[in-house]
Amino acid sequence: MNNFEFKNPTKIIFGKDTIKQLETEIPKNAKVLLLYGGGSIKKNGIYDQVKKALANIELVEFGGIPANPEYATLMEALKVVKEENITYLLAVGGGSVIDGTKFLSAAAVFDGETPWDILTKNIRTEKGMPFGTVLTLPATGSEMNSGAVITRRETKEKLAMGGPGLFPQFSILDPQVIASIPKRQLANGIADAFTHVLEQYMTYPVGAMLQDRFAESILQTLIKVAPKVLKDPTNYKAAANFMWSCTMALNGLIQKGVPTDWAVHAMGHELTALFGIDHARTLAIIAPSHYKYNFDTKKAKLARYADRVWKIKKGSKDDKAYDAIEKTVDFFHKLGIDTKLSNYTDDYEGTAEEIAKRFTDRGWLGLGEHQNLSPDKVKEIVKMSY
Amino acid sequence: MNNFEFKNPTKIIFGKDTIKQLETEIPKNAKVLLLYGGGSIKKNGIYDQVKKALANIELVEFGGIPANPEYATLMEALKVVKEENITYLLAVGGGSVIDGTKFLSAAAVFDGETPWDILTKNIRTEKGMPFGTVLTLPATGSEMNSGAVITRRETKEKLAMGGPGLFPQFSILDPQVIASIPKRQLANGIADAFTHVLEQYMTYPVGAMLQDRFAESILQTLIKVAPKVLKDPTNYKAAANFMWSCTMALNGLIQKGVPTDWAVHAMGHELTALFGIDHARTLAIIAPSHYKYNFDTKKAKLARYADRVWKIKKGSKDDKAYDAIEKTVDFFHKLGIDTKLSNYTDDYEGTAEEIAKRFTDRGWLGLGEHQNLSPDKVKEIVKMSY
Repeated sequence: MNNFEFKNPTKIIFGKDTIKQLETEIPKNAKVLLLYGGGSIKKNGIYDQVKKALANIELVEFGGIPANPEYATLMEALKVVKEENITYLLAVGGGSVIDGTKFLSAAAVFDGETPWDILTKNIRTEKGMPFGTVLTLPATGSEMNSGAVITRRETKEKLAMGGPGLFPQFSILDPQVIASIPKRQLANGIADAFTHVLEQYMTYPVGAMLQDRFAESILQTLIKVAPKVLKDPTNYKAAANFMWSCTMALNGLIQKGVPTDWAVHAMGHELTALFGIDHARTLAIIAPSHYKYNFDTKKAKLARYADRVWKIKKGSKDDKAYDAIEKTVDFFHKLGIDTKLSNYTDDYEGTAEEIAKRFTDRGWLGLGEHQNLSPDKVKEIVKMSY
Repeated sequence: MNNFEFKNPTKIIFGKDTIKQLETEIPKNAKVLLLYGGGSIKKNGIYDQVKKALANIELVEFGGIPANPEYATLMEALKVVKEENITYLLAVGGGSVIDGTKFLSAAAVFDGETPWDILTKNIRTEKGMPFGTVLTLPATGSEMNSGAVITRRETKEKLAMGGPGLFPQFSILDPQVIASIPKRQLANGIADAFTHVLEQYMTYPVGAMLQDRFAESILQTLIKVAPKVLKDPTNYKAAANFMWSCTMALNGLIQKGVPTDWAVHAMGHELTALFGIDHARTLAIIAPSHYKYNFDTKKAKLARYADRVWKIKKGSKDDKAYDAIEKTVDFFHKLGIDTKLSNYTDDYEGTAEEIAKRFTDRGWLGLGEHQNLSPDKVKEIVKMSY
């Protein structure tokens, strides 16, 4: 096991009818900016629950944060934060709204030249403006971590940021919100959380037995609940396990003491930036090729995954490892998610070269747990994903 | 899954040669009371490492905190805290030293009549004196939770306390400390952590799939590393997994959203108070009888435990559940831990009645996850443990 540090101070409030607890979590004297996305919260009743809970608190609203939270939109929100002397942010939404809120939390106290520097110069936020979240779409784990990914359409870029100051003060997780999520987004959420676990697990063994088992526990739970949630999102038991699994998939715990990969995300982000493909689907496009391309260095963990998660007990280590990749592809397909770039666009020629060039330009010369995936290798993996 | 809240702000610093990080974790201007136990830290080098890391910080020492931290001793330490104007506490030890330090953290800011009230009147500590820990004996999980158990020899009592103000600010976990722990204490630590998991798992199913799997993960890891740690405590890989498993067994995570039992601890504490039997061994005495006595209400989880943890695949649900209890007894025996009260004392007659009377006197009329274990039933369980 590698040395590690772990600290996650976010307070989770989980369960039925918990949105009303907003009232006691936000300081009475705060001036709150309520942030949300495309407005679905006004249809499914969540907006009304939030407004009711905050009836006695000064509130300004900012809606319209898009999927893959857009820098230009967030800069509009930042103007509101400053003009209205906002002191507390409340994200009501999925990963995009929460990530956008984290950017605002950082940007509100940033004293550099332009907030874009936070993303391009990797500036860690030690202390941001305090914020809480009401999660409406389980997927990214952003509700219990300190990272965010921001998109800038103008330059077709999608970049990460973070820091210990960007943990939500609290996050409210009411699994009942899942009942009104469209099937496409449910499938995305499952695939997203599943791939988050793989990025922290599918590397090489370092004897971190408990972390491995925790990762496998999340994968097993997601596999079990996926068909139930898709079939009937009002199934509270399945919804609750889906929601908690997504949070645990990326709250820092399972990555402690082990090597992590994240190359699938790095490549996937480019597919979203270039083609606007849903984040989770880009992961499902890249992951299988990535595991096949890096088969030799990953096969020990692939075989363990085969054995413990997919219960593949027969065959050589190589056979099991390979079968597990196929099982993963099959899992994505059963979610209704295509796993080839050509399923999403006819305009894929040259994508591999473009992504490799971007990585070269950014100086990203060695991705993955061994930091040896050069842009040339990235090009091969993306080509395998066509 | 039941509704829950989860917040655990303790910073964990885990790994080789991490004790030196004390230097950056404790505020420069603090006046620190260094608390420890019987002095083993002076033999195994930990004391020297701590002193070196704190060379530039004002330090007062208080050694001699006994196993089952004793109220009278802690009141001596409290005098030092007040006379020396201590502002920060540092526990260097196992669960007893850390629990004792939590009592001091609470007592230092308590403004009631006597600190004993904190224990007898169930007073939650919202904000205590800040403290950190260097863990020298994995077992209790106290390094990452906000609870403590204090003993008063004078009245033969052992009582629990806690509150959100009693999380350590940081805990340093260097698995190398395990190399110098005597076999008896290693066995105790394993049995203690194992039983902590059982108390949060061996109840009845509520559809908390992920929590169940996490609990099983800890049990499986403890079973796997136990013989390795006992055979060779310098085995770093085994030691690291043992240490992290003990912490995860009782840091709050696996109990969220599920019913918990804790009757084994309630009865076990009395055996320590009455006979001075090691805490972990009292759990090994009570647990098997407790599961047999409550077989019908616990057999669904016992059978799952049989299947997933002990890989018992044959037989009826009842058979599997019963076999799993036997496997647990066998596990304790392999650790060198006897599982009958009569193995520890000849003076056991009347113990069951005495404990039942104590519970009646304290108004503890319904223990366990169903809150239906009356003193009469407690008497039966303790008798079965003779």
